[in-house]
Amino acid sequence: MTFSSFIDIGTRGFSDVIDITAKVEAAVRESGIGEGLASVFVIGSTASVTTIEFESGVIEDLKDALERLAPREISYRHDTTWGDGNGFAHVRAALLKPGITVPVTGGAALLGTWQQIVLVDFDNRPRQRRVSIQIVGE
Amino acid sequence: MTFSSFIDIGTRGFSDVIDITAKVEAAVRESGIGEGLASVFVIGSTASVTTIEFESGVIEDLKDALERLAPREISYRHDTTWGDGNGFAHVRAALLKPGITVPVTGGAALLGTWQQIVLVDFDNRPRQRRVSIQIVGE
Amino acid sequence: MTFSSFIDIGTRGFSDVIDITAKVEAAVRESGIGEGLASVFVIGSTASVTTIEFESGVIEDLKDALERLAPREISYRHDTTWGDGNGFAHVRAALLKPGITVPVTGGAALLGTWQQIVLVDFDNRPRQRRVSIQIVGE
Repeated sequence: MTFSSFIDIGTRGFSDVIDITAKVEAAVRESGIGEGLASVFVIGSTASVTTIEFESGVIEDLKDALERLAPREISYRHDTTWGDGNGFAHVRAALLKPGITVPVTGGAALLGTWQQIVLVDFDNRPRQRRVSIQIVGE
Repeated sequence: MTFSSFIDIGTRGFSDVIDITAKVEAAVRESGIGEGLASVFVIGSTASVTTIEFESGVIEDLKDALERLAPREISYRHDTTWGDGNGFAHVRAALLKPGITVPVTGGAALLGTWQQIVLVDFDNRPRQRRVSIQIVGE
Repeated sequence: MTFSSFIDIGTRGFSDVIDITAKVEAAVRESGIGEGLASVFVIGSTASVTTIEFESGVIEDLKDALERLAPREISYRHDTTWGDGNGFAHVRAALLKPGITVPVTGGAALLGTWQQIVLVDFDNRPRQRRVSIQIVGE
C-alpha cells in the first residue's frame, strides 16, 4: 500500500529551519499504514530535510557549521555564471541531501523524544517549498 | 510485506563507530524478504548511520574530519543554554542524518565488499542506542 | 511490488559528478510502478549519490567544498596503513553517504526542474561503478 501527500511551506531562506514533525505524523496517521517506511523529500536543489533537536541554541549552532562548510561570503562559480547569489545554498543542499526515510511502526513515525524532522531552506531569499511525504507499507 | 526489528547497542560515545552489518544482514535473512528496501535508522538526535570500510585507519580519519566539521572545543549555544556539553554531537548528527536505506536483493543487503554499515555515536558519554531495521518488499 | 535494476558507469574518479537522472527515470518507467519509493544506492565505499543542479559552476563549487571537508593533500591513516592514497575518498563517501530515496508518483521520479540525481565518485582513479535502482510500490 502506498500513500502520497505534500506539505507546502513558506520559508525565510538563509538556512531557515522549520519543524515539520507534526505534519509528517499527521500524514502517517491519515495513511492508515501501520508498518512501513515514510520518505520525507524536499523538491528543489537549495533545501534539505534532516532530524535535529528542535531547540533554538542547536539550530544556531547548525547554522554556524553550515557557514564553515560552505561560507556565504566566498566566491562561487555558480554566482559568477548565473548571478543568482545562491551558490552556497546549492552546495549546502548537495552535501546535506534532499530527504530522509523514517520507519513507520505501530501506525506512527519512529523518532526519539528530542529528534524532530526539519526542513532546512538554504536559499538566499524567502521561498515557497513543497515537501513530499510518501509512505509505503501495510 | 513489512518486517520490523531493532538492534540495541551500548556505545562509548565520542564518535564511536560500530559495525552493525552482520546484524542488519541477520534481520534481512530473518525477514524472508527477497526483494525490497531496508531502512537502518537510529533513534535519537546525537548519532547517525552511514557506510564505510570498517578499517581502523579510515575510522580515525573520519573522526578527524568530524572534528573539522564541528569541533568539540568551540563554544556551542546548546551548551550555554542547557549545559549538556554535547552541542558538537547534535550538530554532527544533523549534518550526517539518522539513517540509510539499503537495497535488498536475492534475500540479502546489497553492499560492496569493503562497504560496512556503521552506527556512529557522537554523544559525549557512553549511550545505550536503539537502531530500527525496517524492511519493505516481497 | 518490487523492481530491481542497475546502472553501470565508468567514471574518472576525483569527485567526478555524473548525471544519472535519465537512467533513474527510465528504470521507473520500466518498472511500471505508479506510486512508491525508488532507492538509488552506489555499491562501494568511495562514492555517493545526491541531488544537485547539474550545472558546471555549481559542480566545481561542490568540489571546492569537498576539498575543505576532507582535503586531498593532508595525511590519512588509511593511506599510511594501506598505501591506497584514497583516504580522502573514503572519508568523503562516509560523510555524504551511499544513496538517496526518491518518491515515485504518477509513474515518475518526483524531482525539481533544477534537481538532478548524480553519482559522485571520490576515488583517486577511474572506476567502473554499479548503482542499484530498487523501486518498491504499486
